Amino acid sequence: MSTGEQAHSTTVGTIDEEILAFTAGKDLVLDHQLTEADCIGSAAHAVMLSKMPVTPPVLTKEEADSLCKELARIQQMAVMGEFEIRPEDQDVHLAVERTLTERLGDVGKKIHTGRSRNDQVALDLRLFAKERLLDLMSDTAELAESLTLFAEKYADIPMVGRTHMQPAMPSSVGLWSTAYAEAVLEDLQSLRHVYTLNDQCPLGAAAGYGVPLPIDRKLTSDLLGFSRPIHNVAHAIQSRGKLEYQILQALGQLMITLSRIAQDLMIFTLPEFGYFSIPKAFGTGSSIMPNKNNPDVLELIRSKAAQVVGQGTTVGMILHAAPGGYNRDLQDAKEPFLEGMATTRASVRILSRCIAGLKAHPDRLRAAFDGGVFATDAALALVAKGVPFRDAYHSVKDSLEDLENEDPDRAIGRKKHLGATAGISFGLYRDRIAASRGFIRQGREHFHAAVRRLFAGGK
Amino acid sequence: MSTGEQAHSTTVGTIDEEILAFTAGKDLVLDHQLTEADCIGSAAHAVMLSKMPVTPPVLTKEEADSLCKELARIQQMAVMGEFEIRPEDQDVHLAVERTLTERLGDVGKKIHTGRSRNDQVALDLRLFAKERLLDLMSDTAELAESLTLFAEKYADIPMVGRTHMQPAMPSSVGLWSTAYAEAVLEDLQSLRHVYTLNDQCPLGAAAGYGVPLPIDRKLTSDLLGFSRPIHNVAHAIQSRGKLEYQILQALGQLMITLSRIAQDLMIFTLPEFGYFSIPKAFGTGSSIMPNKNNPDVLELIRSKAAQVVGQGTTVGMILHAAPGGYNRDLQDAKEPFLEGMATTRASVRILSRCIAGLKAHPDRLRAAFDGGVFATDAALALVAKGVPFRDAYHSVKDSLEDLENEDPDRAIGRKKHLGATAGISFGLYRDRIAASRGFIRQGREHFHAAVRRLFAGGK
Amino acid sequence: MSTGEQAHSTTVGTIDEEILAFTAGKDLVLDHQLTEADCIGSAAHAVMLSKMPVTPPVLTKEEADSLCKELARIQQMAVMGEFEIRPEDQDVHLAVERTLTERLGDVGKKIHTGRSRNDQVALDLRLFAKERLLDLMSDTAELAESLTLFAEKYADIPMVGRTHMQPAMPSSVGLWSTAYAEAVLEDLQSLRHVYTLNDQCPLGAAAGYGVPLPIDRKLTSDLLGFSRPIHNVAHAIQSRGKLEYQILQALGQLMITLSRIAQDLMIFTLPEFGYFSIPKAFGTGSSIMPNKNNPDVLELIRSKAAQVVGQGTTVGMILHAAPGGYNRDLQDAKEPFLEGMATTRASVRILSRCIAGLKAHPDRLRAAFDGGVFATDAALALVAKGVPFRDAYHSVKDSLEDLENEDPDRAIGRKKHLGATAGISFGLYRDRIAASRGFIRQGREHFHAAVRRLFAGGK
Amino acid sequence: MSTGEQAHSTTVGTIDEEILAFTAGKDLVLDHQLTEADCIGSAAHAVMLSKMPVTPPVLTKEEADSLCKELARIQQMAVMGEFEIRPEDQDVHLAVERTLTERLGDVGKKIHTGRSRNDQVALDLRLFAKERLLDLMSDTAELAESLTLFAEKYADIPMVGRTHMQPAMPSSVGLWSTAYAEAVLEDLQSLRHVYTLNDQCPLGAAAGYGVPLPIDRKLTSDLLGFSRPIHNVAHAIQSRGKLEYQILQALGQLMITLSRIAQDLMIFTLPEFGYFSIPKAFGTGSSIMPNKNNPDVLELIRSKAAQVVGQGTTVGMILHAAPGGYNRDLQDAKEPFLEGMATTRASVRILSRCIAGLKAHPDRLRAAFDGGVFATDAALALVAKGVPFRDAYHSVKDSLEDLENEDPDRAIGRKKHLGATAGISFGLYRDRIAASRGFIRQGREHFHAAVRRLFAGGK
Repeated sequence: MSTGEQAHSTTVGTIDEEILAFTAGKDLVLDHQLTEADCIGSAAHAVMLSKMPVTPPVLTKEEADSLCKELARIQQMAVMGEFEIRPEDQDVHLAVERTLTERLGDVGKKIHTGRSRNDQVALDLRLFAKERLLDLMSDTAELAESLTLFAEKYADIPMVGRTHMQPAMPSSVGLWSTAYAEAVLEDLQSLRHVYTLNDQCPLGAAAGYGVPLPIDRKLTSDLLGFSRPIHNVAHAIQSRGKLEYQILQALGQLMITLSRIAQDLMIFTLPEFGYFSIPKAFGTGSSIMPNKNNPDVLELIRSKAAQVVGQGTTVGMILHAAPGGYNRDLQDAKEPFLEGMATTRASVRILSRCIAGLKAHPDRLRAAFDGGVFATDAALALVAKGVPFRDAYHSVKDSLEDLENEDPDRAIGRKKHLGATAGISFGLYRDRIAASRGFIRQGREHFHAAVRRLFAGGK
Repeated sequence: MSTGEQAHSTTVGTIDEEILAFTAGKDLVLDHQLTEADCIGSAAHAVMLSKMPVTPPVLTKEEADSLCKELARIQQMAVMGEFEIRPEDQDVHLAVERTLTERLGDVGKKIHTGRSRNDQVALDLRLFAKERLLDLMSDTAELAESLTLFAEKYADIPMVGRTHMQPAMPSSVGLWSTAYAEAVLEDLQSLRHVYTLNDQCPLGAAAGYGVPLPIDRKLTSDLLGFSRPIHNVAHAIQSRGKLEYQILQALGQLMITLSRIAQDLMIFTLPEFGYFSIPKAFGTGSSIMPNKNNPDVLELIRSKAAQVVGQGTTVGMILHAAPGGYNRDLQDAKEPFLEGMATTRASVRILSRCIAGLKAHPDRLRAAFDGGVFATDAALALVAKGVPFRDAYHSVKDSLEDLENEDPDRAIGRKKHLGATAGISFGLYRDRIAASRGFIRQGREHFHAAVRRLFAGGK
Repeated sequence: MSTGEQAHSTTVGTIDEEILAFTAGKDLVLDHQLTEADCIGSAAHAVMLSKMPVTPPVLTKEEADSLCKELARIQQMAVMGEFEIRPEDQDVHLAVERTLTERLGDVGKKIHTGRSRNDQVALDLRLFAKERLLDLMSDTAELAESLTLFAEKYADIPMVGRTHMQPAMPSSVGLWSTAYAEAVLEDLQSLRHVYTLNDQCPLGAAAGYGVPLPIDRKLTSDLLGFSRPIHNVAHAIQSRGKLEYQILQALGQLMITLSRIAQDLMIFTLPEFGYFSIPKAFGTGSSIMPNKNNPDVLELIRSKAAQVVGQGTTVGMILHAAPGGYNRDLQDAKEPFLEGMATTRASVRILSRCIAGLKAHPDRLRAAFDGGVFATDAALALVAKGVPFRDAYHSVKDSLEDLENEDPDRAIGRKKHLGATAGISFGLYRDRIAASRGFIRQGREHFHAAVRRLFAGGK
Repeated sequence: MSTGEQAHSTTVGTIDEEILAFTAGKDLVLDHQLTEADCIGSAAHAVMLSKMPVTPPVLTKEEADSLCKELARIQQMAVMGEFEIRPEDQDVHLAVERTLTERLGDVGKKIHTGRSRNDQVALDLRLFAKERLLDLMSDTAELAESLTLFAEKYADIPMVGRTHMQPAMPSSVGLWSTAYAEAVLEDLQSLRHVYTLNDQCPLGAAAGYGVPLPIDRKLTSDLLGFSRPIHNVAHAIQSRGKLEYQILQALGQLMITLSRIAQDLMIFTLPEFGYFSIPKAFGTGSSIMPNKNNPDVLELIRSKAAQVVGQGTTVGMILHAAPGGYNRDLQDAKEPFLEGMATTRASVRILSRCIAGLKAHPDRLRAAFDGGVFATDAALALVAKGVPFRDAYHSVKDSLEDLENEDPDRAIGRKKHLGATAGISFGLYRDRIAASRGFIRQGREHFHAAVRRLFAGGK
């Protein structure tokens, strides 16, 4: 009976094949994302080795140059999708070293002097994280902008404000949308925090205990554009997993914010509400129901938030059970980290575009108001006439059915204090977005300049 | 600057491409695992349709036969790895339907009558889970057997029993190993529990609201070898995600047990202990340290436990946030479920083989004993002479340094009561393993007979 | 400046006070829940000791009787809330032993012979879990009954069936409510599974390595009404935490089902829907908005599901990081376990009563239908006339706006197959509920008879 | 049969009692931690109301003064543990308002003007978090200092460096301890990040939709010493739960670092290692084994890390499922937040003191070295002579058994590069600790000055 056997083929084999499959995991696939980082890091290491004050030098200036040139070539192949990681390589690090040795002979064999796969992977992950966090921050700033623009467009359109999902008080589309813009901007601060934690160079830690060679860790850190080296070499290695955890926590926060936006949109686009409609391209049909146009994209953002949080849980548990020093467990932090980064970025981009195409329906929004929504305002009107609040509250509560439907436009116009429906400062959001973009631009320029110098031979 | 752009290519494109990539996710890859289940389920559906009392019949007997034959052919292609799911298919379900229509014309278009992609996926997952759970249960029984055999082999070898990781009381290798055999057998009970929950047929629920056709849900359930149909059609659909969660919880329990075995082995194989040694094939070297042979396999079992628990968290969160009825979120329960099943099975198999090759070192095990380990026995010897336990305890505690190192072999021989070092019943473990294997064998035979009948045309 | 100092008083003191507070944790409070179990377990242990074949006997028959009598007295004090656990006792186990010694002298000092606090706590938790799981199962059966009764009452009232939260196809209140009854009954199966795992006696394992005395573990297991002793003594201790984890997983499943019911109710009681209304007593007002009556109870069920799942995560992580043998970490599984049990039971009871008072509003339910909801039925009507399903689907999809609003009552009457709107078997749910209740009744009678015998001296 | 009934008494009563118990939860107990914050926040609100440009004024200057005075009195009672929250109050907010009204009459009834319980709770939590985070940061800086001092004390004592738990390369006690000091300092950065996120004032948001009164939100923010008001009023309310989640994530990171330190200590204090010994006061005995002195404190730190991470999971799940606007679910974020804060602080303090009393045993540390540990150094010595690293690696690997045990002191003295055994800059750690303390001192002074001004009547 062959049923069910096919999918086993990768995992059920001879003991040795099974062990290899079990330990290599998905490295052969995942590591393609790290090829560029590996080339950049190796170039910096080569330049440093050529300047190391030992006789004979581990690498001459010319050898370092040839390594940088060859690494630039491999990086280009990676960009084109042409660099190959063979099963016998096991991972990208050995694939790059093998290629260098094939092309440059003994010089290739020297590149691993004074480092270990441990600090090499730690470095690659940080270089990768640096660029990807900048990308993600950029997309997140755009999401904040989409929300702000949507808010400005419908700034004065009334919308029933809700608590406990129930109608509560007069609000506006502008307030709803900038509330999320502000949440997204806070999450952007958290991304920036982990960007800063990430911006430290682990290279030279080797297996966590340094090397008996006069390597210059400050130099490699500078060559790579990091703000500083991680000081303690054991910490440099033990921060693997920790870093991924910190980043996944920031991603999880952001994803939960996205999920809440998505959930609001799912409710407010229901026919029973009809407040908003999402662009047609963001909906999907059904295989049996010809009438459906479902907000699958929004639902998937909600589920992907759960995914990223679950990935964080995994990495947290890995860390929690792993004793000090490098442990192989940390290798399994790689997949949730890479996946979490990719999922979060894809979600931010999709939602940003969905918001950019979002339409509000003022008629439906206004029609949703009824008398009860104005009860609090009525009580506060009594307060303005001198009635103590608690008494005003009870007086209105006792005559709820007499409340008349007020003009919602007027109601939201009356709340002028800071951050209320008529007191939102759109400029404030634009300023925060601009400041973030300035930070991102600077980070990118600094990093790209470093990379350019390295591939030009580290001059 | 091209750095970092390559890996984006799949996610950063035109809006429509991005939406498609976002919603299809990894279905094109993952769904290959479901092809066989899809063929089996579709064959049962076709047979039922041909017996449905409507005029004209939706399918004639001949049409149903040709569908079953064609589905058997597709299933064979899948086993060979030759069945193709094209991007425009989006998933395996449409790929199979397309193939049927290409080969059989209008008959293929009729196969989706009276079902929806919702109940179809729900069915495929349950068929898949059924076979994979049987496989996993079988491998888990083997792990319990490896542990029992190891225990029998070294039944009378003393081993320091620990609490708080510290030496505590005399124990034995047999006690250590059967403790985990018993834990694994309990986890096997949990697998059997979720196997039973899984053994219900959702087919015919369509999108969760049934169909206005006289379909026979009991018949399809029987044809597929399920114990019964899920009764309520809305529940049949809403149990998606729920089922995966239940299974992932059982997997998580098992993985944590595995992780604890692995962790014990990591400690007891340290040079400082030297109690056990794992087979050489299960170790790995280092890129910088020529001296290393590391227990990577064991570490990875520890991290993979975290992975499976994290996958359960994800599915639990997805469920928690999803309102009633089918929601697209549930689609994202598929990947953690498929991954969790594969990871758990691979881990069980590897550990089972590692235990099968495990060696104990009686000399090191005996040498680890010192006087303190016998303190409790000394107190209880006083008790046997009539001293109240609390007094005996304090008397021994006050003269700890006088305790002499006893003969550990004699010490473990003295504990004869049920389940103690000299009171372990290996037969009890063998019986439980045999009973599990009987259950698994029966489940497999029943299911495979059903599949054979279906592919022979459902007779 | 004193601000903020008060709450620190319990944790910030001398080093020794801080250590004591840190290690004792909340035992002094939590352990009150375990007093009865401790008395029952100690009584069984005393009876067994009195029958142990050693000379002189550790306890005479009379001494055992006096211990049982005194333990019955303590248990009665506990029921009255009058049993005291003093800070110097640290936990309930030492409080009971101290009381016995105060009242019975040396006989009290002998009760701890042949056991350790480890197996004592393990036993207490299992006795506690046994009774509480029976209570919870009973309340859960009642919830299933509330849902079934609600379903029967409104069996034929149409309700828009939803997928992706959007209107999809004709459904009924009866289908909605029995879908959840069936989910709850499945969760009840999971409770029964963990009840069975729990129903094993750890007593006699001592610190996990047994004792050099001829204790009779089968006897104590029988005296306490367990189905069998846990065999391996090391496993008996290592299953601490594991058991709590298994139970918390079953509770988590159930709580997520409850949360989904609550979430549906929150949506369907919104003024925009008005399908249902919950009894007034289950709503709460606002401190500022006189108009509000919020479904706080339902929201809290949703958040409490998160609580119970988080408690499971904690226990899973504790287990994952703890090496073999007893570790103090396992003590910290106690609070999430006790809290999770209490929270789940309170939630089940509240929701059950909420459902019992739930009202459906047929007019609002019927008014929610529009043409699109009937699209699938229209396509299947074409199928019944011989059109292949795919063609029928596209034909209806192309003329969606022409669909007329059908009679929803007729639409749900047409779906007569098993488990569809007109094919629900209420008897099936009643039978499953009755079977569960039979199991619970038997379990209770068996356990209570054992307790009565013990407190009467173990005859 | 009364068994098991006692503990139910709080949850099983009449429906109304059960509902009340279910919704009030533990507020009556937990809220005592928020009394001071509630008084401070209310004082600022009163001062602002008295300056609000309406006629007649909601509060006169004299009324505001009397409120501030009375609030200062209540705060003093809270410090003494004498402020009472009655069941009928439900929570601290109504208890304070009731007390004000009892003592000041109508003036008390006016205090709730222009705010809601929603922004009031949000504010209280932020005031509470501010002070507690400062306390925690202070204790965390002390932990970093303990680790640094321990490192300095044993800076040059060799210690086997490990990877995969196995002996790997020469390391030192100084390197081990500063690795964790650096990790703790990074976690301190994360605390500071969430401190900054927390340092924004939500007051004036009312129920999330502002009020139709000219309140001055900037003024209250300044009066309370916040860096700025949260701008958007809806965000001010929706950030409940979000803030707690962010803080719990930072606490979780820190706790995992603590857990890893604890786990290392548990291993290195085992008799098989004997590297370190913890102060006697930090160990605990056993109820059955007179020989035991167990590191319970360390184990509990490991389990408490799981607790705090689980609490974060709970709050994350609550957020994920809650739609926009205030939802009652957010109330259930309070307990995990308060508990997480208390648990983390207690753990940091205990571990800090444990490290302060930690002893290292140079003889045992040196004795643990054997030849294999020097293999990498041997390979790198060949490199220094010009052999390419890969060749040197293989040459050493082929003659591992010939490696002689070197002098470990010399080996660690040879690694002089930045952050290696002989290249650690203790000054760098001292500087970072001092900088953190400066930040904390400033934060405290600023906050306490604001509180003093408020209780002096807001001048």
